[in-house]
Amino acid sequence: MVWVLSGIIKVLREIFGSDVLSREDIVEYYAYDAQPIKGEIPLAIVFPRKAEQIRSYLVYASKHKIPTYIRGGGTALSGGPIPLVENAVVVSMYRMNRILDIKLKDMQVRTEPGITIDELNIYLGRYGLLFPIDPGSSAAATIGGAIANNAGGVKAVKYGCMKDGWILSLEVVLPNGEIIETGTNTFKAAAGYNLTGLFIGSEGTLGVITKATLKVVAKPKYRVAVRAYFGDEREAAEFVVKLLRMGLDPTAIEFLDRDTLEAVKRYSGLDYKGNAMILVEFTSSIREDVERRLNLLVEILKEEGAIDITWSKTDEEYQKIWMARKAAAPSLGNLKPKYLILDPTVPISKIPELVDICRKIANKYGLIIATFGHAGDGNLHPNVLYDPLDEEEFERALKAAKEISLETIKLGGTVSGEHGVGLEKIETFKKEAGREKLDLMWKIKRLFDPNGILNPGKLFPREYWEEIWGDRLSI
Amino acid sequence: MVWVLSGIIKVLREIFGSDVLSREDIVEYYAYDAQPIKGEIPLAIVFPRKAEQIRSYLVYASKHKIPTYIRGGGTALSGGPIPLVENAVVVSMYRMNRILDIKLKDMQVRTEPGITIDELNIYLGRYGLLFPIDPGSSAAATIGGAIANNAGGVKAVKYGCMKDGWILSLEVVLPNGEIIETGTNTFKAAAGYNLTGLFIGSEGTLGVITKATLKVVAKPKYRVAVRAYFGDEREAAEFVVKLLRMGLDPTAIEFLDRDTLEAVKRYSGLDYKGNAMILVEFTSSIREDVERRLNLLVEILKEEGAIDITWSKTDEEYQKIWMARKAAAPSLGNLKPKYLILDPTVPISKIPELVDICRKIANKYGLIIATFGHAGDGNLHPNVLYDPLDEEEFERALKAAKEISLETIKLGGTVSGEHGVGLEKIETFKKEAGREKLDLMWKIKRLFDPNGILNPGKLFPREYWEEIWGDRLSI
Repeated sequence: MVWVLSGIIKVLREIFGSDVLSREDIVEYYAYDAQPIKGEIPLAIVFPRKAEQIRSYLVYASKHKIPTYIRGGGTALSGGPIPLVENAVVVSMYRMNRILDIKLKDMQVRTEPGITIDELNIYLGRYGLLFPIDPGSSAAATIGGAIANNAGGVKAVKYGCMKDGWILSLEVVLPNGEIIETGTNTFKAAAGYNLTGLFIGSEGTLGVITKATLKVVAKPKYRVAVRAYFGDEREAAEFVVKLLRMGLDPTAIEFLDRDTLEAVKRYSGLDYKGNAMILVEFTSSIREDVERRLNLLVEILKEEGAIDITWSKTDEEYQKIWMARKAAAPSLGNLKPKYLILDPTVPISKIPELVDICRKIANKYGLIIATFGHAGDGNLHPNVLYDPLDEEEFERALKAAKEISLETIKLGGTVSGEHGVGLEKIETFKKEAGREKLDLMWKIKRLFDPNGILNPGKLFPREYWEEIWGDRLSI
Repeated sequence: MVWVLSGIIKVLREIFGSDVLSREDIVEYYAYDAQPIKGEIPLAIVFPRKAEQIRSYLVYASKHKIPTYIRGGGTALSGGPIPLVENAVVVSMYRMNRILDIKLKDMQVRTEPGITIDELNIYLGRYGLLFPIDPGSSAAATIGGAIANNAGGVKAVKYGCMKDGWILSLEVVLPNGEIIETGTNTFKAAAGYNLTGLFIGSEGTLGVITKATLKVVAKPKYRVAVRAYFGDEREAAEFVVKLLRMGLDPTAIEFLDRDTLEAVKRYSGLDYKGNAMILVEFTSSIREDVERRLNLLVEILKEEGAIDITWSKTDEEYQKIWMARKAAAPSLGNLKPKYLILDPTVPISKIPELVDICRKIANKYGLIIATFGHAGDGNLHPNVLYDPLDEEEFERALKAAKEISLETIKLGGTVSGEHGVGLEKIETFKKEAGREKLDLMWKIKRLFDPNGILNPGKLFPREYWEEIWGDRLSI
């Protein structure tokens, strides 16, 4: 076995040159993503620089059945990139991070997958352009990872998610070594099956994205952030539903509950009123659009009983208003050392109920569940807080998290609006999708990846992976 | 054989009761869609009223290998619904046309596939809502057919196409009789493969859509249509590219060339100036949004040398401005009895070149090619006019149409932006997609429909279908 493993390393060095880390070099880093569950420490990590290397590797890996995990920025919140089979190879897309072509007149950019979304937008900003799909982790999240997980983020209420028309085409290396280009670089395309859409959100289980053409928009010149508090969480959630029907085209509608506000206060000193905060942003290329929407919104907020309504007049004030939201996740450590972050998503009228449910489950299990998120999409982030040294509390946290997912399904929602299934939501996703649909998805998986080398252990329940990996699976 | 066929009719009557037309009842209608190529006259047409009937039928049809063609409004422009195997069964979705549920607070509507898009929007309008994806044929096109072909239409510049987030979930009957529900009724969804996206644009080759949940928007209260002429077609096309970079969020940007304008004039008496017309629409829930955009647009139009700029101040004027565009297709008969309509789509900066190319190809073949369409999406409709009694001219028209498609591919575009491949674009789509991608799509087709009973002869070249249907194919 030792010989076999060193043989693998030898082949990897033939393909990737010095861009290989082997186990001796590895810290535990690559066994983790941004959530607390640890995977297997991989045999090696490779850092390809071009699709041809990935092609050579995948042909080799398919032949020798090497478990393979594709990794972007490692910011996943569902265990997506962590190895679950021993002696796996991690393919880090970190070095394939070039912008290949910017077509100003076509409103398109062609890029490699390893660039972070913030880097991309800094570059686009110089030309007055914006790629508007940016998850909270955009400083570290790569465009490839965000595509593979169908990322959304705070602006999804206006722009939707990755799957909603932003990815025009993808270069993908398939496990059999074929390199295909999906889609065309046009805004409309109706010829053939939507392969691009199939790879978006496939969580690295079907192929390796090596290039992407993205649709971009004119970067709005004007923006305003509005903050208001409500006495009651449910009131705030109901306000969101009303706001959406008005057709004001908000760019963001965010919600923070009392526990989150308390955490932010302890973390940053930012005080709050009431029991829930709403943050609304408007953007436009026309100044008066933003002003008019601001006036209308303030009027409605007052009518609906919001308190302490304020809005940004300067860029500094804009940053300050957003600070409460941006500090939300980092500040939770002030309440408890760790948390399980969820991303249940419901039809928007069900947001008040979902907020209620999280509160009730918190009470039932004697836990703090701090909830914030993208209320304008029906997508909340309940964070189930726990102390990792308190095993019994961790068990309760897992139960509470599962219960939130199950209640979300009952509300007609999905267990994941933007983080993906990964490892963490396999069981609840199984409940949501049902056997027939999972079987169909598994057939698609096997069609693209007959040897099941890509991301084994993820998205599908263990019983599916067992037919390929048997006891080698560490779940 | 006669006995076998009457046996099929007998089973169909068991499943569909009196909702069956057999060959004796059939006029040639069902051998056609909205383009001029005639398919086979089917053995029978069935009009299911529920998914269960379709399930029973598909199980039977799979077992006995009955060629099956799903039909919506019959407005397809690529031969999509026409039978190409003799003794086929056409499944008309015409009677599954109920609106099942309207969720006002969720901004969603659940509907059967057979409702026309106009009917749906009349209904939604009562609640101040709009489903914004409406092809030119919305008076007769069904929602199911529009989904199956990834329809776009005049508002795609603002709202995108069917695949861009508007279809939240689908109930689909698979050829093996399984009834699955794809997606969830939420605006964001990141759990599992995007099956919804795979069925959108699959042209009735993978399954039968029996229900759909659509995202709707607040119906804009205000709108303005602006019309202007340019002295030169290329100038007009270049203006479109400039306009798009300004971030004014237009709802429609349409283009009509001189030949189209001449046809409209002869048809409706509507006069024109210059050699190309541009039509821009703005809509909003806020009156001032529309006014401000109008002012900005008129300013730019003047700067760019547009002539005879006018805009709608009343609803009557709005209708009149749109009339030139809406009369475009019907009026072409005033130039020649028939036309081949294409939907090449290019990166937007390539619109001027595409306009040029159409003109050159028209000259080369001595034909009239009247071009109009959705310039704001890079999606034009060149119409190659011919007289069906002049066989030699028809041959030239076919060659010209093919050449436009091939030139579109060279420009980095797609042969179909919104009509689909159907029968008409099989050869050029093969060129566009290439063998590897077609093979992959065919594997997906066989995975869903192992017996190849759904829409045989379409989307894929004959060599693919031959392995199933051999000489029974009439192409």
